Amino acid sequence: MLPIGKTTKKGKRGILERLDAGEIVIGDGGFVFALEKRGYVKAGPWTPEATVEHPEAVRQLHREFLRAGSNVLQTFTFYASEDKLENRGNYVAEKISCQKVNEAACDIAREVANEGDALVAGGVSQTPSYLSCKDKTEVKAAFRKQLDVFMKKNVDFLIAEYFEHVEEAVWAVEVLKESGKPVAATMCIGPEGDMHGVPPGQCAVQLVKAGASIVGVNCHFDPDTSLETVKLMKEGLQAAKLKAHLMSQPLAFHTPDCGKQGFIDLPEFPFGLEPRIVTRWDIQKYARKAYDLGIRYIGGCCGFEPYHVRAIAEELAPERGFLPEASEKHGSWGDSLSMHTKPWVRARARKEYWENLKPASGRPYCPSMSKPDGWGVTKGARELMQQKEATSEQQLKELFQKQKF
Amino acid sequence: MLPIGKTTKKGKRGILERLDAGEIVIGDGGFVFALEKRGYVKAGPWTPEATVEHPEAVRQLHREFLRAGSNVLQTFTFYASEDKLENRGNYVAEKISCQKVNEAACDIAREVANEGDALVAGGVSQTPSYLSCKDKTEVKAAFRKQLDVFMKKNVDFLIAEYFEHVEEAVWAVEVLKESGKPVAATMCIGPEGDMHGVPPGQCAVQLVKAGASIVGVNCHFDPDTSLETVKLMKEGLQAAKLKAHLMSQPLAFHTPDCGKQGFIDLPEFPFGLEPRIVTRWDIQKYARKAYDLGIRYIGGCCGFEPYHVRAIAEELAPERGFLPEASEKHGSWGDSLSMHTKPWVRARARKEYWENLKPASGRPYCPSMSKPDGWGVTKGARELMQQKEATSEQQLKELFQKQKF
Amino acid sequence: MLPIGKTTKKGKRGILERLDAGEIVIGDGGFVFALEKRGYVKAGPWTPEATVEHPEAVRQLHREFLRAGSNVLQTFTFYASEDKLENRGNYVAEKISCQKVNEAACDIAREVANEGDALVAGGVSQTPSYLSCKDKTEVKAAFRKQLDVFMKKNVDFLIAEYFEHVEEAVWAVEVLKESGKPVAATMCIGPEGDMHGVPPGQCAVQLVKAGASIVGVNCHFDPDTSLETVKLMKEGLQAAKLKAHLMSQPLAFHTPDCGKQGFIDLPEFPFGLEPRIVTRWDIQKYARKAYDLGIRYIGGCCGFEPYHVRAIAEELAPERGFLPEASEKHGSWGDSLSMHTKPWVRARARKEYWENLKPASGRPYCPSMSKPDGWGVTKGARELMQQKEATSEQQLKELFQKQKF
Amino acid sequence: MLPIGKTTKKGKRGILERLDAGEIVIGDGGFVFALEKRGYVKAGPWTPEATVEHPEAVRQLHREFLRAGSNVLQTFTFYASEDKLENRGNYVAEKISCQKVNEAACDIAREVANEGDALVAGGVSQTPSYLSCKDKTEVKAAFRKQLDVFMKKNVDFLIAEYFEHVEEAVWAVEVLKESGKPVAATMCIGPEGDMHGVPPGQCAVQLVKAGASIVGVNCHFDPDTSLETVKLMKEGLQAAKLKAHLMSQPLAFHTPDCGKQGFIDLPEFPFGLEPRIVTRWDIQKYARKAYDLGIRYIGGCCGFEPYHVRAIAEELAPERGFLPEASEKHGSWGDSLSMHTKPWVRARARKEYWENLKPASGRPYCPSMSKPDGWGVTKGARELMQQKEATSEQQLKELFQKQKF
Repeated sequence: MLPIGKTTKKGKRGILERLDAGEIVIGDGGFVFALEKRGYVKAGPWTPEATVEHPEAVRQLHREFLRAGSNVLQTFTFYASEDKLENRGNYVAEKISCQKVNEAACDIAREVANEGDALVAGGVSQTPSYLSCKDKTEVKAAFRKQLDVFMKKNVDFLIAEYFEHVEEAVWAVEVLKESGKPVAATMCIGPEGDMHGVPPGQCAVQLVKAGASIVGVNCHFDPDTSLETVKLMKEGLQAAKLKAHLMSQPLAFHTPDCGKQGFIDLPEFPFGLEPRIVTRWDIQKYARKAYDLGIRYIGGCCGFEPYHVRAIAEELAPERGFLPEASEKHGSWGDSLSMHTKPWVRARARKEYWENLKPASGRPYCPSMSKPDGWGVTKGARELMQQKEATSEQQLKELFQKQKF
Repeated sequence: MLPIGKTTKKGKRGILERLDAGEIVIGDGGFVFALEKRGYVKAGPWTPEATVEHPEAVRQLHREFLRAGSNVLQTFTFYASEDKLENRGNYVAEKISCQKVNEAACDIAREVANEGDALVAGGVSQTPSYLSCKDKTEVKAAFRKQLDVFMKKNVDFLIAEYFEHVEEAVWAVEVLKESGKPVAATMCIGPEGDMHGVPPGQCAVQLVKAGASIVGVNCHFDPDTSLETVKLMKEGLQAAKLKAHLMSQPLAFHTPDCGKQGFIDLPEFPFGLEPRIVTRWDIQKYARKAYDLGIRYIGGCCGFEPYHVRAIAEELAPERGFLPEASEKHGSWGDSLSMHTKPWVRARARKEYWENLKPASGRPYCPSMSKPDGWGVTKGARELMQQKEATSEQQLKELFQKQKF
Repeated sequence: MLPIGKTTKKGKRGILERLDAGEIVIGDGGFVFALEKRGYVKAGPWTPEATVEHPEAVRQLHREFLRAGSNVLQTFTFYASEDKLENRGNYVAEKISCQKVNEAACDIAREVANEGDALVAGGVSQTPSYLSCKDKTEVKAAFRKQLDVFMKKNVDFLIAEYFEHVEEAVWAVEVLKESGKPVAATMCIGPEGDMHGVPPGQCAVQLVKAGASIVGVNCHFDPDTSLETVKLMKEGLQAAKLKAHLMSQPLAFHTPDCGKQGFIDLPEFPFGLEPRIVTRWDIQKYARKAYDLGIRYIGGCCGFEPYHVRAIAEELAPERGFLPEASEKHGSWGDSLSMHTKPWVRARARKEYWENLKPASGRPYCPSMSKPDGWGVTKGARELMQQKEATSEQQLKELFQKQKF
Repeated sequence: MLPIGKTTKKGKRGILERLDAGEIVIGDGGFVFALEKRGYVKAGPWTPEATVEHPEAVRQLHREFLRAGSNVLQTFTFYASEDKLENRGNYVAEKISCQKVNEAACDIAREVANEGDALVAGGVSQTPSYLSCKDKTEVKAAFRKQLDVFMKKNVDFLIAEYFEHVEEAVWAVEVLKESGKPVAATMCIGPEGDMHGVPPGQCAVQLVKAGASIVGVNCHFDPDTSLETVKLMKEGLQAAKLKAHLMSQPLAFHTPDCGKQGFIDLPEFPFGLEPRIVTRWDIQKYARKAYDLGIRYIGGCCGFEPYHVRAIAEELAPERGFLPEASEKHGSWGDSLSMHTKPWVRARARKEYWENLKPASGRPYCPSMSKPDGWGVTKGARELMQQKEATSEQQLKELFQKQKF
């Protein structure tokens, strides 16, 4: 058995130093989904005021990811742009300022990162300003506001993630590059490309040209679909003779049935996704496949719990030379079952068993796939909704009411 | 909307005071499964040395259940009898004494209970001593060792849980009753009864006669099956003209396909159960059904996460008059989606939608039900294994090897 | 390979001669379903006027069953009682008399039976007269009218089949016994018993006491469920120290999800049952299981096509010593695939392959089980409907409208 | 209700007359699968010697299709080329000559066609000669041999069907065109094109250039996939500014999970396809979709039973102005259930019910999709096998044994 990895508490090497050296960097998992289930994030707004309201809960989740093998702790600043927080602010008990939320996120991430060999990454994501057609200056100002905090708190590098439109993602990268720190950029798109129809290969090219050193995808699609998209990005970069590190942080839900806009459109989103949750063995397959594809920054997004991150670290332990701390409490491929009293449970303590298991849902009255919602909406209406022209809710509603769905 | 419940930090009323007054008492969820996913418990041994090794992780989980509405925090002392810890002890980094594990569990539970209106329950569960045919005196000694800690730490009441044989459960109740504190007793059995064939109604009668004030089931079966079993217990008590409060703490997994010994025998146990995880809406149905059946102590076991406990508290909020704290971050029946940008996601912000959803698994290559393992084992062999006679591993192995499975 | 069975065209031995000698008697399959798909029977009325309108189609189906191995050709007289034909008569192009339908059925069955070693059985089934509470005399008169034709045409023996109420089945047996010919009686019930709650064991006892030499079940349930019911009948007869031959003619549809009244209540009945159709391999398992249970008259009902009957004959060929004619065009356990050009198709030419195949539905948007309809109907209303009191359609409608379903 | 269509027994109009006038022409269904289930065709060889051995069975099936609405009766000459019959001949009881099989097929089809308004089409299909790399002259000679019979028997038009390689299909069309009769050509390919990688649009162009007046697909894929392929053919023809009538004769099995080579590779082929059988309502959707796509020759292939053909005729009855004869025994959209005794069955007598039903499989232990076999075979090996180079069985076996599958 490989040794549990020693944590290096100081003299950490930077993200590019690691990736340039060919090392595997393990990302973390999904905060909004995990903390929603723990009671600290509200589905719908999905905002991270918990950094101020319940820092101990955020800290604990960071710690679990670190223990599971994460080399990067992302600040819990998803949807923490000022416009988003204000937009959704009506439900926050006491108004908490954007700055406070972002600062607290940095402090917590840093505190935990110091407990091990992890870097802190400051993250920005898509803004309501862009969707409501604010101009480039305004949108960039929103990113800059968050960046100011990240600079003050001196994060190790920056991530622009969860962008449906490459145009906005490029603006984000441009702002983040002003810092001089390394920038990673991931879009929440599938193989069909961004919401304006820009294909993944071209998105990757634009992001790298804007200054991103690491590009890839996050959220919206399951591991298999996400890897397909990254593959297209890789091919786009090769065709353009550009170099960049690749990154993937997919859902931990099976979504073979979703359409262009990913799991949001599935009827189970967000409160009935349980039967789609991937197993640790699914994740081991994902990690291997990602590695074989040349991806070296491998993590997860919504649905990824600490044990999913551990599965990445265990699958790639031979390459990395060590296991994560959390493997103290986990036998590789189920070998902790070899002590079970029942012989047929002991018989499960082997790789072939778990690798080949086709797990049943226990739900014979449910189907195995769903049709995404919004299918009845005419293509024209969908396109309008996806474009910036369709900004007014009223306009959307009217378009929508003309359709049956 | 109902108010968020005020937490009463002192002058708490005892468990029987509450139940006798007809109040609903909400239990907590499953520690070993939740902490396994968080990286602190090893599947197979399932022992709770995390109370000493990582108290912050245990504390955080207690806190989440409290916030979700739990009125009882069970000490994390599952499988913490001395014989079990020794049996499994070879994998614990440094040997931690049984007493230390149990004491730490009490301290953490009390600390968090003091933050709200929750009682602390000291828990014991079935022992290897019984399974390996140690006599009554020895088995009782194991329980008494844990009880000593619970008395020293002055827990509020006691629970004997996870018993497959009513004989051992009765011994546990007899020991716990020596304390003078109220005793609850739950068995991990289904409608077919205990492993020696004692039907649920008769189990309930024996437990009440032994001194339990509260009886019911926990673990091993899904909510529907568990409620069926409690119904049989209720009928047994009525027939015997005995009175007791009823309690249920089922799995948060769908298991319509499991046999007499519950989910352990399902091929997915324990690392491929994801597609069986119940939704919050399944739990709301469970809570209502349990309430209608006259059960007033309603909680969960393996698989129950904080949001599942919150679902109990939300479903029964009209009866209780208030919502749990965690409902600050949850709209009843999905109403937080009414702010979503997509009209078809907004259309999900209603009870009828979630109540009627048949969630897809996203796994078209998997079946919806499994055959439990061990089917090839002859009835005789299974019975032997379930009886105390079959103690030696060697003997079991021989019996088993004669069968194909 | 076993030889193809020689057909004995004369000097045939009677049904009891065969069964008493311990021989296996293979029944035929389902006429109304097969002929509905071929375009000659209307679903809903399910009446057999095709014997007059399209004798060539009926003859061809008899011939296919004979070729597949059937030792009994049942006259196609299902629902051919006068009251039923009149009741449903409005859709028959030209009114065709009950007598004509029954006579034609006898002639066609005899013509084909003469081509091989098969007996002709005249069949009666439950009547609208009984359901609308006509008295015993009237109901018996209906059976007698059909019996007159069977006597005139000199069928080899008689079958009373498809009875939901043992009371009516007993009346039928009593009438048929007047003929002096052997009588078989099968009910379309499951393990829960007849519509008045008489358990299967007791039904069997009453039928044998009324004069039936052969008893069992037909229709309404899948092979597994049907065999369970016959087992209960067998136990009932043993307990009563009565002797009779056992018979089973189940559906060729999987119905693990149906309730007491069988497949009629499933939402797929009758036009969406395709995904439930059993394979030939399912039938081989059924035939073996039936044989092991001591059943010697083994056939099928709705959904059974000629190839399903052939599967019975092939499975029991070792016991019978020969294969049916139709096996000229069928390799045992798929061995005709050994000539296929693709290696992976050739790899399917073996028993283990087909025995273990879990065939996919190709329908990922469909569930694997359904809830029977009529669940919302209160138990009281259902019981009323099942009893003779609820004869008036108006009364039923009113009862029903009070329920949501 | 529309009238039942009068059959015109003489002065029939030719296939092109009808199609040129914009009429809908309804094809027939699948003979080899239907007759295999009836006991007259052997799976594996799939040859039509039944035309000589059991003409009454072939005649009856033709009659059922005619009654269901077919306007074309294809001679049952699938795989009736001399090389194929000899290849498979070892299992035919007495050697029957190629000429005899083809002549009998023509006679039977003509006899039944004369009973109604149907044309007789002589059909040829792909040959072993082509697959074993015989040259163009030899392959064409095989087609010519069958054509000679068709000319002698004066069929109404010709169909070249079930070709996996457009090259061979073109050769077949060229031969058939020598007759001066109209020629239809269908390939058993999916959207990915033929086995040499020629896309559907290009296949269509080549076939029309070779002389086909009608082009499309048959067999190998389900209705939805087949229509996709025809759509690509249509686009190919439009791009090439060619005109031809479109035709589709898909499987009556759901095959969303099959690969490039269609249902042959599915593990359920050919003896476990039951759960995939389409309902009549699936066929009504198919007929409508085909019609809307501009296809006017609409029929079926393997799995299509007479009631499936009737479903085409019923769906398109408004356009055609009449119903087929078999609709005498079928209520549109289930309306014959309005007479049922149970209110909840009566409630099924409506279009919305059947249109929206998601039929359950009754098989909770089975998945909903399968992985096609031969996946483990390297792409290179598959390609070789699909190419003519890989003719020797030995060579194939060796290639194959190097792979795991």
